[in-house]
Amino acid sequence: MNSRSRTADSTAKAAALIGKQTGEHKVVVDPDLLEGFALDESEAEPVVPDAVVRVENAEDIRCVLKTAEELDVPVTPRAGGTGKSGGAVPVCGGIVMAFSRMNQLMDIDRENLLAVVEPGMILKDFQEEVEKAGLFFPPDPASLDSCALGGNVAENAGGPRAFKYGVTREYVLGLDCLLMGGTGFFTGRRTVKGVAGYDVASLLVGSEGTLAVFSRIMLRLIRNPVGIATLLAEFDTEISAARAVSAIISRGLVPRVLELIDSACVDTARREGKMAIPENTGCLLLIEVDGEEDVIEKEIETLADLLEKQKAVNILAAQDSAQRDRLWTTRRELSELIKRRAVFKIADDVAVPRAALPDALEAYRKAGDRYGVEVASFGHAGDGNLHVNVLWNDEALADNARKTVDGIMQATLDLGGTITGEHGVGHVKAKYLAMELSPESAALQKRLKNTFDPKGLLNPGKLFIT
Amino acid sequence: MNSRSRTADSTAKAAALIGKQTGEHKVVVDPDLLEGFALDESEAEPVVPDAVVRVENAEDIRCVLKTAEELDVPVTPRAGGTGKSGGAVPVCGGIVMAFSRMNQLMDIDRENLLAVVEPGMILKDFQEEVEKAGLFFPPDPASLDSCALGGNVAENAGGPRAFKYGVTREYVLGLDCLLMGGTGFFTGRRTVKGVAGYDVASLLVGSEGTLAVFSRIMLRLIRNPVGIATLLAEFDTEISAARAVSAIISRGLVPRVLELIDSACVDTARREGKMAIPENTGCLLLIEVDGEEDVIEKEIETLADLLEKQKAVNILAAQDSAQRDRLWTTRRELSELIKRRAVFKIADDVAVPRAALPDALEAYRKAGDRYGVEVASFGHAGDGNLHVNVLWNDEALADNARKTVDGIMQATLDLGGTITGEHGVGHVKAKYLAMELSPESAALQKRLKNTFDPKGLLNPGKLFIT
Repeated sequence: MNSRSRTADSTAKAAALIGKQTGEHKVVVDPDLLEGFALDESEAEPVVPDAVVRVENAEDIRCVLKTAEELDVPVTPRAGGTGKSGGAVPVCGGIVMAFSRMNQLMDIDRENLLAVVEPGMILKDFQEEVEKAGLFFPPDPASLDSCALGGNVAENAGGPRAFKYGVTREYVLGLDCLLMGGTGFFTGRRTVKGVAGYDVASLLVGSEGTLAVFSRIMLRLIRNPVGIATLLAEFDTEISAARAVSAIISRGLVPRVLELIDSACVDTARREGKMAIPENTGCLLLIEVDGEEDVIEKEIETLADLLEKQKAVNILAAQDSAQRDRLWTTRRELSELIKRRAVFKIADDVAVPRAALPDALEAYRKAGDRYGVEVASFGHAGDGNLHVNVLWNDEALADNARKTVDGIMQATLDLGGTITGEHGVGHVKAKYLAMELSPESAALQKRLKNTFDPKGLLNPGKLFIT
Repeated sequence: MNSRSRTADSTAKAAALIGKQTGEHKVVVDPDLLEGFALDESEAEPVVPDAVVRVENAEDIRCVLKTAEELDVPVTPRAGGTGKSGGAVPVCGGIVMAFSRMNQLMDIDRENLLAVVEPGMILKDFQEEVEKAGLFFPPDPASLDSCALGGNVAENAGGPRAFKYGVTREYVLGLDCLLMGGTGFFTGRRTVKGVAGYDVASLLVGSEGTLAVFSRIMLRLIRNPVGIATLLAEFDTEISAARAVSAIISRGLVPRVLELIDSACVDTARREGKMAIPENTGCLLLIEVDGEEDVIEKEIETLADLLEKQKAVNILAAQDSAQRDRLWTTRRELSELIKRRAVFKIADDVAVPRAALPDALEAYRKAGDRYGVEVASFGHAGDGNLHVNVLWNDEALADNARKTVDGIMQATLDLGGTITGEHGVGHVKAKYLAMELSPESAALQKRLKNTFDPKGLLNPGKLFIT
């Protein structure tokens, strides 16, 4: 019996035990239904799990983690299933722990500016409730309509607004979590400040479901900005646009959004998108500021002046929400347009020190040129975080595309950057992690994994290729 | 031979070896000089180390950690020595690793908004350099003239400005660190965003020198606010002042400073301090806003209106730096005045959810009344973080004072708070940590400590009483 069928066998036993203890209706073993849990939104190969447990409470989670550890069954947690690095793909088979039924908002505490949610709650639903209470939860990954907060915390999700407001970690106060084996506890704090013991909550944020599973999440909220204003600036070249980004940051301005769309993306949008984009436009910057109405008015003026000085060819301004939506059109449709531009695609997510943006864009394009594939980049210029797409149509170029990705990773690290700005390592980038972490740092990280999960059963096959 | 003299013996051997490898002048064994390393600014009992090594570079640190591990010698890192929880007190003897000679600013990178420093650099010196470059590093613990950045990172230091700007963790991008035994590596990132692997840097921040030692620190900087304005509001009662704090936060205002001074502190300041304070004033709020000049003008107006509605009896406003200094007088002189108010003092540092502030103040005073000692509190009301001072003059009341502290800790936890908002657990609060962490959470934290430092030699006797 090979390892895969041994896992299938023990999973069947575990599923039966879990069904008996938590309720049969929570356990899925029907192959047709299992297929829906084989993939996330990454380019990972699908792997169908041997069973799915739709947990409804902390006791269900405990039962799964205890039974699975006893029977040596891998467990892969899955919140929204919208990850871009294969984090929710059960690459070693076993059980997928699905959180779709744990999607309740438990509390919004306006006086203490915090919320308590279950990990299966969809981010957008949460943000709507928070905004109804006059408050704000800034993280805004592109998948916000369908991603869930458990995944956001596990991946430390970012998004365009991270430039001003930071990423998910900045908003996690405390976690009710469970370890493989079923031990559960609260870690973190209910107060804004607190330094009692090690900050395990911060370590769990971004740990990609490999250290612990969350049953409840306590989040910090902030005030809702009163006004928002948006600018779209058209540039001849990426260099001019990148210089404008540097100038904005050096001037001390902190827009909430500072997005760059490179020439290949502009070209795609011009040909296939909804907005009319002039022929000579080689790069777009989308900029959004928020705050008190009169302040943002002044900021928009300052920005417009600065953009003109930095050779913006054209600047479009919006202040009402319909106009703002229009300016976001190209940025929003880009993922879809890029998918259609080529038969094959690998989507990367890298970050470099901001000042290295022009060098990074050039290096990525050169890597593509060298191997005869196209490279199209867009993303969060304010954070130096770019989504770099490697595109090709001829199946025979698949190996070249992979070499291009290798080149992009190496160039990123050479520029002082990181192989992943916000999507995580997961399964698809595990082979690159060793390029970024020194052997000593990687060894410590593996020892940490071992401290939480000695049998290596929680979301195996992620982060480290051992 | 008892354990203490065994340690002295092995330390002597280690010190000789270290001197040979790094240079004799770096090693201190003269008892008169060693006494200067027995204490920090906490109420911990002094413990004279068996040797001090004044490290000058990463290689020196490596040599100390390697030699000490081989010979089973405890090592206690010491940056500024200004900690309030006994973190730098070598409670098990052995070697104190002193960072005063590693105090260089390596780099301020204006374009990428980051700085690289050595851990012995004094915070104030660093802030001055940062401000010369037109940038801002917000953390501002009261000891900023003498505390050093290595200690700030180890303790995750806060300060009044944390209400708007967050604590030290929010500004640590990456760390060059060394483990007990001497293995060194960089952890963290040079980019604003990054999610490659576990966030070990965040775990090390606030780990109180028990997991690793830093040789270089990479810090994120932000823009320097253009203008600052300060208000001092006088209230009849603490309840009115606490309500004003809630009203400010509910209104969505984010002052950079929001400090509360309770009636016992006001009383002390009235009798002994430099400012004239009216007889009927029972509580003070010190509020400071920063930002663009016209914005802060408006904010100050809004705040003044709101404070009046919340029954502030008198509101003093300052906008130039001399006037601001005047309004800070009472807040700044408080620590000194409180020290003089009584022969004996235990200074606590707790945090509660903001809305619980009035209940907390009442509970603390009741605890003091019950045991016949005085309780005087002041601190960062915006964060719910209070410095609670237990004061007594009769030596016979020492036991009562300790019981009062027990009562303060229990009341804090009952209100959903934490035993330490910003000073750390260190040695003096180790006995309270088990009241806050569940046994499961504490067990995991001890396993983490063991993962980094299996022999338990790095800053022993801190955090956990085993």
